[in-house]
Amino acid sequence: MLPHFNKDCYLDHVAIAVSDIDVAQKRWEALGLTFAPEREVVESQLVTTAFAPIDQHAHIELLCPYGEGGAIKKFIEKNGEGIHHLCFKVPDVKAKMEELKTHGFRFIYEEATAGANNCLVNFIHPKSTGGVLIEISQTLN
Amino acid sequence: MLPHFNKDCYLDHVAIAVSDIDVAQKRWEALGLTFAPEREVVESQLVTTAFAPIDQHAHIELLCPYGEGGAIKKFIEKNGEGIHHLCFKVPDVKAKMEELKTHGFRFIYEEATAGANNCLVNFIHPKSTGGVLIEISQTLN
Repeated sequence: MLPHFNKDCYLDHVAIAVSDIDVAQKRWEALGLTFAPEREVVESQLVTTAFAPIDQHAHIELLCPYGEGGAIKKFIEKNGEGIHHLCFKVPDVKAKMEELKTHGFRFIYEEATAGANNCLVNFIHPKSTGGVLIEISQTLN
Repeated sequence: MLPHFNKDCYLDHVAIAVSDIDVAQKRWEALGLTFAPEREVVESQLVTTAFAPIDQHAHIELLCPYGEGGAIKKFIEKNGEGIHHLCFKVPDVKAKMEELKTHGFRFIYEEATAGANNCLVNFIHPKSTGGVLIEISQTLN
């Protein structure tokens, strides 16, 4: 019997790096997903994003680079399109960082940083997670 | 405003290839997940699996190879540990295959095949999904 999920650590999104957001959205719609009509441009990351729900809290987030530079453009140049990271929602990102550091996890940013949608976020380095880039995200009030 | 998720296509699990299932499980527990006490050995795939819920339906599935050969062992030898595939639950895997073929999706198996936990499954080739290996899975009654 499986335990229930932990409301203090649940999947918020699976982020997928794509080179053409219209083509990618059509593919995922063909699978059966429905996207929010609004897309969001995250200027600090040089990406356009599209969201589709895949469970009670979880979403697919398409990340499409625009312009020059930016982490997602570099990721696609190096690896091709594909899954970029998993994001888990936590109640207190700074407290979670301190707790995880005691377990040997390393973070991309020294301090938690502002993310899209009024969130405070950081990323756990894939070298300390077994090859998975993990974002932890706290929704600010 | 985001639409609700589609009950005919929702995330069942994110499968992660790991080389040591005890080490991997401890890492994910440190993040905040709780694993089912039972592990399942899938002999046809030469893997041991461990499941932890991450949302209402979705789970993290750790996939750890044992013995020689098997797709997950080869995956880790080629790519290292990391995310292996996403699995979506659908009501009728054969009907979904026919529908997706009309959109140009290609499948790993010609016919849907028996998966773990009394499921009928197939995998959509990552070359037709933008680099993401996607399992579609129907729970049999």
